[in-house]
Amino acid sequence: MKTDELCINTLRFLSIEAVEKAKSGHPGAPMGMAAMAYALWQHHLKHNPSNPEWFNRDRFVLSAGHASALLYSLLHVYGYPLPLDELKRFRQLGSMTPGHPEHDVHLGIETTTGPLGQGFGNAVGMAMAEAWLAATFNRPGYEIVDHFTYVFASDGDMMEGVTSEAASLAGTLALGKLICIYDDNEISIEGSTTLAFTENVAERFRSYGWHVLEGVDGLDHKQVEKALDCAKTQTDKPSLILCSTTIGYGSPGKAGKASAHGEPLGTEEVRLVRQTLDWPYAPFEIPEAARHHFNQVKHRGQKTEDDWMQLIQQYRSTFPELATVLDHAVEGKLPEDWESFIGELFGSVGQAAATREPSGVVLNAFGGSIENLLGGSADLAPSNKTLMKNSSSFNADNYAGRNLHFGVREHAMASLANGMSLHGGVIPYIGTFLIFYDYMRPAVRLAAMMGVQVIYVFTHDSIGLGEDGPTHQPVEQLMGLRMVPGMVTLRPADGIETLQAWQIAIERKHGPTALVLTRQKVPAIDRSNIDLQGDTHRGAYIIWQASDNPEFIIIATGSEVSMAIGAARILAERGIKSRVVSMPSWELFEAQDKNYRERVLPSAVSARISVEAGRTLGWQKYVGNCGIALGVDTFGASAPWIQVYEHVGLSADAVVKSALTLLANNQDQSD
Amino acid sequence: MKTDELCINTLRFLSIEAVEKAKSGHPGAPMGMAAMAYALWQHHLKHNPSNPEWFNRDRFVLSAGHASALLYSLLHVYGYPLPLDELKRFRQLGSMTPGHPEHDVHLGIETTTGPLGQGFGNAVGMAMAEAWLAATFNRPGYEIVDHFTYVFASDGDMMEGVTSEAASLAGTLALGKLICIYDDNEISIEGSTTLAFTENVAERFRSYGWHVLEGVDGLDHKQVEKALDCAKTQTDKPSLILCSTTIGYGSPGKAGKASAHGEPLGTEEVRLVRQTLDWPYAPFEIPEAARHHFNQVKHRGQKTEDDWMQLIQQYRSTFPELATVLDHAVEGKLPEDWESFIGELFGSVGQAAATREPSGVVLNAFGGSIENLLGGSADLAPSNKTLMKNSSSFNADNYAGRNLHFGVREHAMASLANGMSLHGGVIPYIGTFLIFYDYMRPAVRLAAMMGVQVIYVFTHDSIGLGEDGPTHQPVEQLMGLRMVPGMVTLRPADGIETLQAWQIAIERKHGPTALVLTRQKVPAIDRSNIDLQGDTHRGAYIIWQASDNPEFIIIATGSEVSMAIGAARILAERGIKSRVVSMPSWELFEAQDKNYRERVLPSAVSARISVEAGRTLGWQKYVGNCGIALGVDTFGASAPWIQVYEHVGLSADAVVKSALTLLANNQDQSD
Repeated sequence: MKTDELCINTLRFLSIEAVEKAKSGHPGAPMGMAAMAYALWQHHLKHNPSNPEWFNRDRFVLSAGHASALLYSLLHVYGYPLPLDELKRFRQLGSMTPGHPEHDVHLGIETTTGPLGQGFGNAVGMAMAEAWLAATFNRPGYEIVDHFTYVFASDGDMMEGVTSEAASLAGTLALGKLICIYDDNEISIEGSTTLAFTENVAERFRSYGWHVLEGVDGLDHKQVEKALDCAKTQTDKPSLILCSTTIGYGSPGKAGKASAHGEPLGTEEVRLVRQTLDWPYAPFEIPEAARHHFNQVKHRGQKTEDDWMQLIQQYRSTFPELATVLDHAVEGKLPEDWESFIGELFGSVGQAAATREPSGVVLNAFGGSIENLLGGSADLAPSNKTLMKNSSSFNADNYAGRNLHFGVREHAMASLANGMSLHGGVIPYIGTFLIFYDYMRPAVRLAAMMGVQVIYVFTHDSIGLGEDGPTHQPVEQLMGLRMVPGMVTLRPADGIETLQAWQIAIERKHGPTALVLTRQKVPAIDRSNIDLQGDTHRGAYIIWQASDNPEFIIIATGSEVSMAIGAARILAERGIKSRVVSMPSWELFEAQDKNYRERVLPSAVSARISVEAGRTLGWQKYVGNCGIALGVDTFGASAPWIQVYEHVGLSADAVVKSALTLLANNQDQSD
Repeated sequence: MKTDELCINTLRFLSIEAVEKAKSGHPGAPMGMAAMAYALWQHHLKHNPSNPEWFNRDRFVLSAGHASALLYSLLHVYGYPLPLDELKRFRQLGSMTPGHPEHDVHLGIETTTGPLGQGFGNAVGMAMAEAWLAATFNRPGYEIVDHFTYVFASDGDMMEGVTSEAASLAGTLALGKLICIYDDNEISIEGSTTLAFTENVAERFRSYGWHVLEGVDGLDHKQVEKALDCAKTQTDKPSLILCSTTIGYGSPGKAGKASAHGEPLGTEEVRLVRQTLDWPYAPFEIPEAARHHFNQVKHRGQKTEDDWMQLIQQYRSTFPELATVLDHAVEGKLPEDWESFIGELFGSVGQAAATREPSGVVLNAFGGSIENLLGGSADLAPSNKTLMKNSSSFNADNYAGRNLHFGVREHAMASLANGMSLHGGVIPYIGTFLIFYDYMRPAVRLAAMMGVQVIYVFTHDSIGLGEDGPTHQPVEQLMGLRMVPGMVTLRPADGIETLQAWQIAIERKHGPTALVLTRQKVPAIDRSNIDLQGDTHRGAYIIWQASDNPEFIIIATGSEVSMAIGAARILAERGIKSRVVSMPSWELFEAQDKNYRERVLPSAVSARISVEAGRTLGWQKYVGNCGIALGVDTFGASAPWIQVYEHVGLSADAVVKSALTLLANNQDQSD
């Protein structure tokens, strides 16, 4: 057997055996894609397995995450720190080889994939980050940031809408260093793709403005290598290479069938594959010739990084200031003076305004000091206040622009933002109406799972948006954000809290942060009563009280905080001493120590009301058995916003009424 | 002015004035689309304004829902029951003219739109329902079901992934009676569509297999009429008509600009539009000649329905049995014997099995008796057990098939299912893994808002799916379903509850129902202890208890019910008398009267534990201040499922331990 074939079959059999041993997994895709993967990793991919984190490496994304066994096999044979024993522990608890790839850059896994289309979107985002960094930091003779992003996509990836959105935008942006290799095997789980997928994918991508290479036999590594050569020369368009392959290639009984997809081949079928592919080696054995051949890449990779290191050293001496900015960006460090202006901002954000307004002010201020903060909106920038006023638009003619235009493509936007953050060197923020969080949930969940920094600017956060009506009024989305493990959600009550929320989001490097902001004007809260500027970073704090020993606590968030204070004042006039707690973030409050939590919400005070213009389901956690949760448990209505509030029964008077009911009940019980 | 222009400008000015009066809304799109709308409604649309519910009407969907003022204007001038006064109450509380169109078939509004792309998906689903009904019920000479579905789509619709998914599938299915008119105005909120959307939409739709008509001036009603003529003759492909238009047409200051999109033109600009379009009439005045011209359609429409009534009367005499099935389907009635076989099923579903298994059995049984139950999966039918074994695939060569293949397109699937249900005559069910509910949330929310019957079969419902790992393990999705107002979610504990859950879903005509089912095997619950077959329809019931006066209640759902019973038995051995409540549906339980709720969960018993393999956030509602909620508050892990349960600490032993802690605390307090 030729060395190339030997290497390709090594990848196939490592994958097959990993799945067999786990008694679980997807052998068919690795068997079909092994030659494609070999062509890329052996001959084209610029990487240094000894330093998977090398910043100028090519990025490789396996969007078809179910082919994880192939990725783990690649990482092992090319010398990444993934031992053979871990391949044998495929899909076992605590292994380095879970069912679907999980982001671990130390290991060479660029992103978490499995939910189809997400990897494709991530790859587009990575290519955008590369383009921005290159345009911003490269100088003639110093192509410091200069790499390709490769993505392997399956039929399933091609069917998902998020891929269509991302591909269309990639075409508009002319991302010439993005190359997608499409595993066109014509099989999905229910059978032939003709059941549901007869479109002409090549034509579709051409319509997006892509460079498309067709007629490539994906089982022939030489053809794939040539196609990659060609794709790399076309630098003014992203490239799609359609590779015809066979799922389960080599399996007499399952090749080209859906049955090769999602379960082990079985002992007998594995025996037949060995016969067919002439494979005499033991399970998990890597033939010596193959090992030797794979190793060459490792040596080449080290050399490539060494050369780059020389270049960047020269760059650092020639452009010391620029290099410092780049180094900080790559390391994820903020500039020292990033919040020096905050004192000045307090004044300007301390006015009555919709919280989206101070958000725009603060974003622009941070944009001034943090040069790698960039982002945009899904065609709602004027409403989301996400425009960076002193910067230009990022587009095919100007990759140095910091204002991104995603179009009406929320899902891709979130998936791209993940890719940008994963690439490193940039801090992405993205905006849309809170209701459209629903369009991007799968990508947001992955941001939380991976722990990457993405800042979500969700405006129009409740029924308070008014006339646009129930289709646009979020009800369950705010609590929905709190449901996502690893997410930090902040719903600031006014400009001061908005400023602080942004500070938290900027500093939170290892997880996404959602800022939930109003469309409608809210009062600036009078903090004179409590001698503080707000304790947003503690998640919840006393914002007003009639006494240190209140009979009663009202917990509110965002636009309902001033309503709660209004109610508390009315109650105070009647001699009822209450406390109002502003709780911009559940997660941050729950991270406080017990003493602090007890100080803010003393267990002894069981008379509690929560007020929030969203679902009440969940608030029982804070108001307890005896409390009342006021909120919105139906869909909203189309009307001027104050009328919608009245319609659903949210008002200071309603809070007062609930308070009196609650106190009367407590009285009864203690009688 | 010619009558045609007079009519078109009538539509423009009604829309403009409605927005002016409301001081809120979107004038630009109606101004640009009025001629397109007139061409369709005046000359092509088959409808009877005197009976908006006529079953064989053409369906019209305004996917660009922000152009609602245009739709309301159309409905008013063509004689639908929408008075002029309601146009004057645009976007006011309780009016018939909310900010975005809200499904109201009595009024002529086929679906709720606004979130972009959804209307397009609905239209594809309507065309599918039409195709299925026609193939199933029409007989030679009796084209009883025979109508077009028209959809108006905007640039924003075209950018959304759900549209791409739906359009690709529509092409594969060759839905020749689907016609999309694309308002190609090249403006979105952030400015020119060149910012983010330079793809060739015509080529893209051709790649999907659509018939595409280009170069149509959408401001010239005659050109649009001709294009519609052409589109209607091409019956083996869906048609896309690209109409070049100008947003805010007629406005000197705002035409062709983003500023025409989302706010009133303002008094001065309206004056200028009046000048430009030569419009001397008072606000909301409909010129007599226009009124007369519009009226012709109403008369024609009545005649068309009358003719059809004659035809269907003949059909009823010629094919009485078929006609009864059709009539029932159209009226939304179930056949009398639809659940006659249920007694027999109890045996076969009463075994230990993954709940997706009995779900498949029950679906097939109901499929036998309910002939208009049809559906499928987003390429996961073998896993979701959604295949109707005695039927064929719905495809371009066989529209009578009842097995739908959506491909890996969850979002479109849910949007299409809405359209099918809205069309009427069919009961759609759709399947995927519960995690992929995230991909389809916007469409599911609209199903709930509209109150349409769609049955969701969500399998692989927790960490219990095992090796596929955290990307595929839902954690927050189950509580997420409960967050949606109007949704009924059922997570059955075994085959018996699964059967009953399906009964509930089938009978629930006015809202969507989610069935949440396991991948992993669960025991058949021994119900001998409590002398009942399960009370799934009551949402929660006592499934096991050691005593009528328990010290302790364990509430569980789905796969955790048998775990809870296991724990209760261990506690019983130690002399602690507990009760286990199976709670398949929160919503159904909350709809019970207070007596029943108190009987199942007596307030006096405050020692409570909930057990559910999902987020605990929310369970405080039932377990109260003193209780413990056991669940999964982190992402899962890839491993054999039993190990994942151990990993997150969910087991009968954990329940026992929590119970003992809780009882000890209570003891302390009463000491």
